[in-house]
Amino acid sequence: MMKNFLISLILLLIYSCQSTKSENNIAIVIHGGAGTILKENMTTEVESAYLNKLEEAVQTGYEILKNGGSSQSAVDETIKIMEDSPLFNAGIGAALTNEETASLDASFMEGKNLNAGAIAGSKYIKNPISAAISVMEDSPHVLLSSDGADEFAIKMGLDTVPNSYFITERRLNSVRKAKKDDMFSFEYSYINDSKYGTVGCVAIDKMGNISSGTSTGGTTNKKWGRIGDVPIIGAGTYANNDCCGISTTGWGEHFIRNVVAYDIAAQIIYNDKGIKEASINSLDKVMKTGGDGGVIGLDNKGNISMEFNTAGMYRASIDKNGNLTVKIYSD
Amino acid sequence: MMKNFLISLILLLIYSCQSTKSENNIAIVIHGGAGTILKENMTTEVESAYLNKLEEAVQTGYEILKNGGSSQSAVDETIKIMEDSPLFNAGIGAALTNEETASLDASFMEGKNLNAGAIAGSKYIKNPISAAISVMEDSPHVLLSSDGADEFAIKMGLDTVPNSYFITERRLNSVRKAKKDDMFSFEYSYINDSKYGTVGCVAIDKMGNISSGTSTGGTTNKKWGRIGDVPIIGAGTYANNDCCGISTTGWGEHFIRNVVAYDIAAQIIYNDKGIKEASINSLDKVMKTGGDGGVIGLDNKGNISMEFNTAGMYRASIDKNGNLTVKIYSD
Repeated sequence: MMKNFLISLILLLIYSCQSTKSENNIAIVIHGGAGTILKENMTTEVESAYLNKLEEAVQTGYEILKNGGSSQSAVDETIKIMEDSPLFNAGIGAALTNEETASLDASFMEGKNLNAGAIAGSKYIKNPISAAISVMEDSPHVLLSSDGADEFAIKMGLDTVPNSYFITERRLNSVRKAKKDDMFSFEYSYINDSKYGTVGCVAIDKMGNISSGTSTGGTTNKKWGRIGDVPIIGAGTYANNDCCGISTTGWGEHFIRNVVAYDIAAQIIYNDKGIKEASINSLDKVMKTGGDGGVIGLDNKGNISMEFNTAGMYRASIDKNGNLTVKIYSD
Repeated sequence: MMKNFLISLILLLIYSCQSTKSENNIAIVIHGGAGTILKENMTTEVESAYLNKLEEAVQTGYEILKNGGSSQSAVDETIKIMEDSPLFNAGIGAALTNEETASLDASFMEGKNLNAGAIAGSKYIKNPISAAISVMEDSPHVLLSSDGADEFAIKMGLDTVPNSYFITERRLNSVRKAKKDDMFSFEYSYINDSKYGTVGCVAIDKMGNISSGTSTGGTTNKKWGRIGDVPIIGAGTYANNDCCGISTTGWGEHFIRNVVAYDIAAQIIYNDKGIKEASINSLDKVMKTGGDGGVIGLDNKGNISMEFNTAGMYRASIDKNGNLTVKIYSD
């Protein structure tokens, strides 16, 4: 009797230690886009609005992780908060196409089994990140596009809205100005209008599972059904429990050409680099082909990285020690 | 005077040696799809038709390289021959969608500057590979999709055809059979109908420039604007003069999730692997997530690799010594 009690006590102690150890590992990092974000162009009100929304988003994901929720759920709920805010170029407030409509891209990847899902060119899905997760879970495919993506989301019973829901006055002014000058937003610096307003989130949960997600309206004035890096697994999003999770924001074409998200992972897997050094190396490659932007990520030990080669990047994180960081400009 | 003459002579000799050396480096490799290709299911006539067309395609590209043409031009012309043949799942003879239409994807990448272009979901472009090259050269984008891709191609003056041009009786029978059983082609083995009939080509020219291209009709019975790995740089196609060029064929979703084309490159860049070993490693990863298929590639020394984990892969190459190989089944 006493022996059984002692064994139970020892097992309980071992279990508690393990569970405490793995609880230390939860961490989350988000971005709300990188670009020409300068303090001198920002009002205190706008700055506060961004800082508050970033904090709300990252705290929401962290609470889910703290309560034992999955990194998938944390990434989904965190990105939805940013999609539902007109501050960011994703969901409502998305950058508009040449036709003055919203056309939304998103992707999601799960590090434990390398499952992934993505949509490109959706017109009606309220929360593109949830549709990306649904493509992963409910279809045999990874990437669905345009009308087909909307049709799939409607079939799956996801929330849909008229395209006008996404359109804000600020973005309408931006695209009209860009059309007048026949420029794409990445060729075109516009005060207070983040050049690359993608949103993204990477999280690691108590089970050590990493998930990454990214969502965007793409570039202002985009034409010809242009697809950027966001729905491209390996370019805009990557997750693998063996190394890390990554979400990018920037001049999408250069992030595709440099396969940025997976290039960071490959440096960790094959070359034993740390996530920060690998991120800096990949951004250097982006700069060499003429692009710029930023990347966020965390490795499977919960180490966080937030790097960019633009003036600023909306970003926030809560690290494995529970420390909150919310920043806009370069340090 | 004599001294100047001697210096000139030495410089001329050095130049000649270099130019001879680099001329030895030209090489080309192609695939016409991998899958359940078994000798017992093949007639002699069909087998000859494939072998002849593969040889014609690879010889065409090699002649261009031998005459000092660019690897871009070699890849373009070689793939066009396969697109224009109903034998392969690309251009005419493409696998058909759930709507019994052709929906074409292609991508191209240039190793000297990491430029890339791709189209997804085109209905009217006669030669998708040329459209991918045009996206790279004539637009600020990498990937254009659906109606937008067609609109761009028409604007650029590329050859367009009615969608019915692409449709063959063989593919119509396949999709109708698949629809009846509600299966996608990769879940569905069909005698004499290559599961993954993508075509691809990688070449290195006298200048040492590597180019890669891939073209496909996607999977039989595809729905919801599904995009596979072919138009995804890093998954279906990759080229970088620092290491190699790659084109893949197989269950596209698994090639996206494993970022196959760039994973092979990354092993060469970061882990000093040879192209054959790196290709085998990446295909092992594809198998681990439940997929299969093949990859072709060559490194910047002109070493060729043609690997697959299916029963067969239509493939051909002419190596740096001028040796021709044309094969269908496993060795």
